[in-house]
Amino acid sequence: MERIEQHACFGGRQEVWRHASAVLGCDMRVGVFLPSAALRGESCPVLYWLSGLTCTEQNFITKAGAQAHAERHGLILVAPDTSPRGADVADDPAYDLGQGAGFYLNATQAPWAAHYRMQDYVAEELPGLIERHFPASSARSIAGHSMGGHGALVTALRHPGRYRSVSAFSPIVAPSQVPWGRKAFAAYLGDDPAAWTRWDAVELIRAASPADHLPMLVDQGLDDEFLDEQLRTDLFEAACLEAGYMATVRRHAGYDHSYYFIASFIGEHVAFHAAELRG
Amino acid sequence: MERIEQHACFGGRQEVWRHASAVLGCDMRVGVFLPSAALRGESCPVLYWLSGLTCTEQNFITKAGAQAHAERHGLILVAPDTSPRGADVADDPAYDLGQGAGFYLNATQAPWAAHYRMQDYVAEELPGLIERHFPASSARSIAGHSMGGHGALVTALRHPGRYRSVSAFSPIVAPSQVPWGRKAFAAYLGDDPAAWTRWDAVELIRAASPADHLPMLVDQGLDDEFLDEQLRTDLFEAACLEAGYMATVRRHAGYDHSYYFIASFIGEHVAFHAAELRG
Repeated sequence: MERIEQHACFGGRQEVWRHASAVLGCDMRVGVFLPSAALRGESCPVLYWLSGLTCTEQNFITKAGAQAHAERHGLILVAPDTSPRGADVADDPAYDLGQGAGFYLNATQAPWAAHYRMQDYVAEELPGLIERHFPASSARSIAGHSMGGHGALVTALRHPGRYRSVSAFSPIVAPSQVPWGRKAFAAYLGDDPAAWTRWDAVELIRAASPADHLPMLVDQGLDDEFLDEQLRTDLFEAACLEAGYMATVRRHAGYDHSYYFIASFIGEHVAFHAAELRG
Repeated sequence: MERIEQHACFGGRQEVWRHASAVLGCDMRVGVFLPSAALRGESCPVLYWLSGLTCTEQNFITKAGAQAHAERHGLILVAPDTSPRGADVADDPAYDLGQGAGFYLNATQAPWAAHYRMQDYVAEELPGLIERHFPASSARSIAGHSMGGHGALVTALRHPGRYRSVSAFSPIVAPSQVPWGRKAFAAYLGDDPAAWTRWDAVELIRAASPADHLPMLVDQGLDDEFLDEQLRTDLFEAACLEAGYMATVRRHAGYDHSYYFIASFIGEHVAFHAAELRG
């Protein structure tokens, strides 16, 4: 791993690292915030953040203001890129497919299957790297926004016991049922919807064993321009109710899909995870 | 004035407005954060923020996290662009001259004099617009970063009584003596250094009447890559000491020139200004 940025930040340090990913078959960049406790060598829990469509590792670390809260709670923040990258990685001119739009799944279809294994990257390879290279404990939580909210929910639900808690801002909760998800899933996973259910939070909520339920927080802005067509918080709430899954779903009047919404409530999300990670 | 963005943010609202500037002879964009008190119609004091080289009205509003603090203290935040803009506005291919590099002065030299009157814009036209269109009181403070730190110091020092307080992150304090400033001043003001002194914070500190001294806070990171060549905090401190100007100058080990530094201490700057604006 090679450090390519480092900035003092709220008493800790925001870093950006580049590393070769064996899983993805390309170089990847990842933002790592180390609170002062970690800089002193203390073992700290880790909160993973998955970003949305078109984002890189930069958006969350420059816009969310999460570092102030992570410093207060002594959490490491890890913010990876949203897809494999590079000239030899398959891509598409649309913003919602290919590079910048990995959807945190393992693709099975050509030309995507060669590199697009973001699920294995975020759930396995990346935590392994982080726990070897930084003073990180194995206490992990995961959060994300929009496509990354989908990614956080799906990753946590697919790996019982691996995360202490999960949260999402404005997540795509039912990708099998909305245009963004149907387009991506058809390309990455093929046309058989039976292959989609293991990558769909609403389906995974329905299938979850009660013993595996974990603390879950979802925040959604009511002025979000994507709410009705792409996000469908209502389907998530209905699935939780039906399954007896005690997720906390909050709606916020006036808030939209932007980082202004994330910044406004990221402090509560970090505190929510810290209570599970340090409690 | 036309509103081109609005986002709920920390209980208030981050807006971006476009308006025709008579002073600059072009359309300008400006970020305006309205705390919830202003949204309820209460008259609120205003903190102006001047950004650095290459920035637009977007950098501060997306990266600094100042809105949380402005909401807490009930301040309006106003963040203008850094120069006149447009196809008919003089420009230069370098990042440190022309569009994005107005240096908050009134140019006297061709081809710049036609549009580059940023001092009159930030000190007169813009406050006039803000105080007519928003529930803004006439209590004003001003702050900025780098070129905008120069702008904040110079604007406050040139207009005794107009601002309650001034602060700066990583300011260019002695533009007459450093490469960024000498290049810009030669272009905008001509080769006679006598014309430069009224745009140089160190010179203005020396010339200030003690009755006009105002609360002043300067923060500087010691790992700032521009400190020794362009910023020269030492010259500012020496001028303050010689003039008996009681500015607070703080040095921060490890911090660089980036928005990570600004985000880390903007809360203290907003509180510093709020004490003067609401005290």
